[in-house]
Amino acid sequence: MAGSSAELLTPEDLEARLRQVGETRYHHLHPFQLRLQSGECTRGEVEAWALNRYLYQACIPQKDSHILARMEDASMRREWRQRIIDHDGEREGEGGIAKWLKLTDDLGLDRGDVMSGRLALPATKFAVNAYLSFVKDRSLLEAIASSLTELFSPMVIKTRVAGMLSNYDYVTQETLAYFTARPVQAKRDSDFALAYVLEHAKTPEQQQAAIGALEFKCSMLWTMLDALEHAYVYAKPWPDAFAPDGAAEMRRAAAE
Amino acid sequence: MAGSSAELLTPEDLEARLRQVGETRYHHLHPFQLRLQSGECTRGEVEAWALNRYLYQACIPQKDSHILARMEDASMRREWRQRIIDHDGEREGEGGIAKWLKLTDDLGLDRGDVMSGRLALPATKFAVNAYLSFVKDRSLLEAIASSLTELFSPMVIKTRVAGMLSNYDYVTQETLAYFTARPVQAKRDSDFALAYVLEHAKTPEQQQAAIGALEFKCSMLWTMLDALEHAYVYAKPWPDAFAPDGAAEMRRAAAE
Repeated sequence: MAGSSAELLTPEDLEARLRQVGETRYHHLHPFQLRLQSGECTRGEVEAWALNRYLYQACIPQKDSHILARMEDASMRREWRQRIIDHDGEREGEGGIAKWLKLTDDLGLDRGDVMSGRLALPATKFAVNAYLSFVKDRSLLEAIASSLTELFSPMVIKTRVAGMLSNYDYVTQETLAYFTARPVQAKRDSDFALAYVLEHAKTPEQQQAAIGALEFKCSMLWTMLDALEHAYVYAKPWPDAFAPDGAAEMRRAAAE
Repeated sequence: MAGSSAELLTPEDLEARLRQVGETRYHHLHPFQLRLQSGECTRGEVEAWALNRYLYQACIPQKDSHILARMEDASMRREWRQRIIDHDGEREGEGGIAKWLKLTDDLGLDRGDVMSGRLALPATKFAVNAYLSFVKDRSLLEAIASSLTELFSPMVIKTRVAGMLSNYDYVTQETLAYFTARPVQAKRDSDFALAYVLEHAKTPEQQQAAIGALEFKCSMLWTMLDALEHAYVYAKPWPDAFAPDGAAEMRRAAAE
């Protein structure tokens, strides 16, 4: 955990520590993630995952806007603003959020239910809120370091897409269009963020803060999957949360 | 859920709706709560509960300070400030937070571990953060309405204390001193808050917002127990979270 060491790391050692956080704390290790990509998830679990994760996807341009608002350097803002464009698109129906809605559409979920968040788990909302608070309240270095989970996402995306395509007959390449663009974007974004962190974490305290920020972000992604596993695999949902066999099931039946 | 009705309720009907939220959403119904009071929890689970809930206890005077800061009326502030005194005490070692530390002390937990929150579940931190954000960002009416879980706490406290005393030989009346003062304080506080809400929720929208605020608060308490159940009953802890059989166990063994 962050704080266990107070010596100044070389940039190489700091990068190694950051990558070690990913290896041990990123959600590619989470049981629900393994379940999702191996085909063990029920359709209801896949729906609940897509519905809850929408709130995370939807918060990304807000998160990046908070970071943008804190940058005093125009050249940095020019780099960072591309993230907002990637997720919001150039026009209605484009961009990462619209692609996520393509996924929830294809799963038969109602857009009003998805976009309002009214059926999402409270833990999902709290995690998203914690992420937004973090990038507002912590140092710019920590806010940027928290984005470094993108160092690890390309590999996970590949495994997730391959696993979902081969295991769920209701999932097509088109359904998962969101993920097609992400590895290239994530590589570009994380290259920039990593260079920034390695350059600006100049004291042991700043280095530990950067490591802690990445741990925080991993814990936030992990906790969203914990909540899904608890609610849907262990069947302990918050009473007002999405019920896979309820409304969505009925809508599907009516449409068939 | 809030928002399902748009007619203006009488104060009596609004109170009935608020009490109905408690009857169906308060954490007296949560499986971990039932497990705790029936003696089914392992010692490690009781420790994890006390360690995580400390963060909630510790946030209460901050939450109440945010609400106090938003009150423009001195007579209201005079009422509300007593909550802060109750939790922080008149001097070191007194007040609700100190009494909660008496509980964690008696369970053999290290005060540094407890007070730093470093072993708490991420979901606990996110829930507490969501509560603080809520009372800062929402209307004063909603912030006050979110405190109305205290309408329901006296009954739960009685059941919890009786259950814990009769089922765990390492728990004494003194260990649970926190709960001795709470029913009287909670009754006084919730009488005031309920009268405020019934008087100031004058439109259907305000009434629905007050009901929604209480649902939010119930979901926050519920989610903290979800996270404990998932991590410790289903044995799926975040890697950096408190491990009952680890450090605390060793400290106890060394002390015996």
